[in-house]
Amino acid sequence: MTDKRWAFEDFVEGLTIPLGQKNVSAEEIIDFASQFDMQPMHLDEEAGRASILGGLSASGWHTVSMFMRLICDHFLLDSTSQGAPGVEYLKWKKPVLADDTIRGEAHVLATRRSGSRPQLGFVTFRNSLYNQRDELVLEFSNTGMFLLRNREVA
Amino acid sequence: MTDKRWAFEDFVEGLTIPLGQKNVSAEEIIDFASQFDMQPMHLDEEAGRASILGGLSASGWHTVSMFMRLICDHFLLDSTSQGAPGVEYLKWKKPVLADDTIRGEAHVLATRRSGSRPQLGFVTFRNSLYNQRDELVLEFSNTGMFLLRNREVA
Repeated sequence: MTDKRWAFEDFVEGLTIPLGQKNVSAEEIIDFASQFDMQPMHLDEEAGRASILGGLSASGWHTVSMFMRLICDHFLLDSTSQGAPGVEYLKWKKPVLADDTIRGEAHVLATRRSGSRPQLGFVTFRNSLYNQRDELVLEFSNTGMFLLRNREVA
Repeated sequence: MTDKRWAFEDFVEGLTIPLGQKNVSAEEIIDFASQFDMQPMHLDEEAGRASILGGLSASGWHTVSMFMRLICDHFLLDSTSQGAPGVEYLKWKKPVLADDTIRGEAHVLATRRSGSRPQLGFVTFRNSLYNQRDELVLEFSNTGMFLLRNREVA
């Protein structure tokens, strides 16, 4: 048994988990970009306006990292997660600009028990991030590993 | 024409671009995790040792972000890049632990000219990150858009 809110059995195919929202500041965008992605449109408002992105815009990796934070806050830290081996695909659909408010959703596409480790299951998510106009800005799919709640039966 | 070192024509199929190396400190791992991925094995040495990762280990998104920084430093900032719409796949193969030294490579898998925008081309990379024991820790594939050097001919 586990005292966690989310174990493998709780991720039912078709379930959509709301992940809340977050305002994105210019300071955060510049701070991340200064460390990891120093392209001008991620560091400077004018350079951003001159680019196809249309304004100071978050690095794509910053956008994914903010999504990860939403996942942590809304289920992962209170789950039996055993990590995730990778990402099936990832699409940046629209820029995330300074002062945008982003909102996330994790949708359970499929689940399956592990063949070799009976206490473990795989959950495949389609993760979606929207802006304040409900435009999809990021979509990616990944598969996470979670321990079962009821491991005696396993 | 462009004064950039890297334009579409320079990404020849089969080319491998070395991206240098970087030592990863415990402080950096904890700093990133505190903002974006507060799972215990990314925040605390003892929790890391108790996990399957075997030590204080970088968030997978931190690992990718450090790869992005290597890309920036070694070709992207001196290129005609017009961004990248996404990632085809991404695999975290082994943990990146505190004090590891990582080394990156970008391998050109394929290139093609844009049908609709003659001044633009697509470059598909297989990106690999190794640790100091030459073990593959991260692999992902993505397609970037680059302006041609010789746009008159286009």
